[in-house]
Amino acid sequence: METVQEIREKSPLVHNITNYVVMNNTANALLAIGASPVMAHALEEVEDIASISSSLVINMGTLSPKWVEAMERAMKKANELNKPIVFDPVGVGASAYRTETALRLVDNYQPSVIRGNASEIMALAKMSHETKGVDSTMSSENAVDAARSLSKKFGNTVVVSGEIDYVVTGDQTTEVKGGSSLMPKVTGMGCTATSMIGACIAVNSNYHQASINGMEIMAQAGSQAETTSNGPGSFQMNFIDSLYQLS
Amino acid sequence: METVQEIREKSPLVHNITNYVVMNNTANALLAIGASPVMAHALEEVEDIASISSSLVINMGTLSPKWVEAMERAMKKANELNKPIVFDPVGVGASAYRTETALRLVDNYQPSVIRGNASEIMALAKMSHETKGVDSTMSSENAVDAARSLSKKFGNTVVVSGEIDYVVTGDQTTEVKGGSSLMPKVTGMGCTATSMIGACIAVNSNYHQASINGMEIMAQAGSQAETTSNGPGSFQMNFIDSLYQLS
Amino acid sequence: METVQEIREKSPLVHNITNYVVMNNTANALLAIGASPVMAHALEEVEDIASISSSLVINMGTLSPKWVEAMERAMKKANELNKPIVFDPVGVGASAYRTETALRLVDNYQPSVIRGNASEIMALAKMSHETKGVDSTMSSENAVDAARSLSKKFGNTVVVSGEIDYVVTGDQTTEVKGGSSLMPKVTGMGCTATSMIGACIAVNSNYHQASINGMEIMAQAGSQAETTSNGPGSFQMNFIDSLYQLS
Repeated sequence: METVQEIREKSPLVHNITNYVVMNNTANALLAIGASPVMAHALEEVEDIASISSSLVINMGTLSPKWVEAMERAMKKANELNKPIVFDPVGVGASAYRTETALRLVDNYQPSVIRGNASEIMALAKMSHETKGVDSTMSSENAVDAARSLSKKFGNTVVVSGEIDYVVTGDQTTEVKGGSSLMPKVTGMGCTATSMIGACIAVNSNYHQASINGMEIMAQAGSQAETTSNGPGSFQMNFIDSLYQLS
Repeated sequence: METVQEIREKSPLVHNITNYVVMNNTANALLAIGASPVMAHALEEVEDIASISSSLVINMGTLSPKWVEAMERAMKKANELNKPIVFDPVGVGASAYRTETALRLVDNYQPSVIRGNASEIMALAKMSHETKGVDSTMSSENAVDAARSLSKKFGNTVVVSGEIDYVVTGDQTTEVKGGSSLMPKVTGMGCTATSMIGACIAVNSNYHQASINGMEIMAQAGSQAETTSNGPGSFQMNFIDSLYQLS
Repeated sequence: METVQEIREKSPLVHNITNYVVMNNTANALLAIGASPVMAHALEEVEDIASISSSLVINMGTLSPKWVEAMERAMKKANELNKPIVFDPVGVGASAYRTETALRLVDNYQPSVIRGNASEIMALAKMSHETKGVDSTMSSENAVDAARSLSKKFGNTVVVSGEIDYVVTGDQTTEVKGGSSLMPKVTGMGCTATSMIGACIAVNSNYHQASINGMEIMAQAGSQAETTSNGPGSFQMNFIDSLYQLS
């Protein structure tokens, strides 16, 4: 994949404000694909870090007020400097706090890409309001309309991930197939997908294409990892090796 | 195991307020056994999340005041709604703060199950006051008396994990054997045990039996994982695969 | 290695105040080498934990004000009790906040050892002020002068890790070779190195020699792990197994 080559050559700095559960895997996935991850959330430095980075990944998995404030500062700075942002509204709909926070972040700042599962995208589009925790409870197909409405409202790209991934920009919809049935059994694979998009938008300003590339990276590495895995434990490890081996 | 089958069928939402060290492994262990984990600690949402969950896992591994406040809110809500709670007093006895916090949580709220190693259970029972960090420094056998006194005082189930695990409810004591000598060499295996109990009490209101089942899951997956491991690194991975393969 | 034997016999308690990304790996690496890790950062307990520990590891990877305050309290207590400290100035130079914090910590407290990559050591020595995130952008050789000036100023040992590691105490410089080209592709291997030094200074008060031993542990386990790894995912796992198998 050309994009992978470009990530490996440029090694873009990708600034992540993400959740505690996935930080290690996200950093390792970004390193494996060739990017340079930085995790930083202190109010005292997020603007500095956003300024020297090529893209910003905002993931609200284990959100709390200080972290949300950091996300807002970093997003504001990234917008000012025209740095691309990918936003992952983890578990939006599972609590009023999550929903309010997600809506405020997309209303007040301009993420270039939003990625979630079907429940999250539908909750965010106010079409559906009940999600069961952070897992998806409906097929991604049903969420394409929600994605389109979000994309048109915010003028950005919206990705619905699931067995088939949908990348939606206005009236344009692209499907990405592949991956593995083990992926939903490993925590944070969605967060990893978001970070892969973060690496791709750092080197490609066509965000629709970059999002497709990010999901293709996931699909290819996932398919490859499955062939040598005995369960979700070995899959999590093999997935990182597969990202590293992608050519 | 019937309980495993039931967890896989119902996929109960298990709310975890746990420590930074183990969050990834805990989430993966819960997914591998068939439960649906959610990690959430913000004061703004813990009551909402506790309300939609089937059980609550409270682990004070990397405690701090805001997190303890979140634990208290979530425990209060779970008690009000009669949702079962499992409490893991990690490192109780290692600092005054830990001891005071653990005692306050068990005094003010009603955890259905308390799980710890021998030192922790004895410290909590005020029979022993010195623990060496978070590792156990005495055999679990000596702590059965402490467990019994705790169980009678609080009217719940107390689990002492070690080479042999003891599940104690009042005058009833059940031993669980199995596992692997590599388990104490992997960080957070105790925390994983607590989360497995959290999955079992979500589908079985007989907390003594559910605790036995949780420890049996650990013992069986541990024994299985050891057969294909070269050390604690591969054991940690194989353990997740073994949980996934348990039938 | 004699030091490894001593760590395994004494199982020293190593207190870590470190970053979210690496906590799990750091704890597992310390367990694998035979030490007893404790992760604790609450202001309410860091002094208690520092007091019962044999050494203190301070890593500012995902720093924020409360955590920095905890680092200061723990370092002050460790200094009072003559417990050795190893300090890892992750990403110093990447933001003003990081630089100020690192300089304050080394100015106000006495870490026995400072370990960083070339960029970090140079930034800390005020010889270089631009680092690209948390990765090193220059060879470690160029930083030996910086390390020497730091070592002389603070009267301690400074370690520059890279393809070749340099352990510098005053005018004494020792090289450590080995390791694997996969190490920079795994997040937190530098943090693991710091924690290995933390284990070694807990049992050996010759900090120059203990730092050499810590880096030799990394080099040997890294070389060994590479022989059975297909990429950074399996390397991360095999590295823990290799630490466990070191004799």
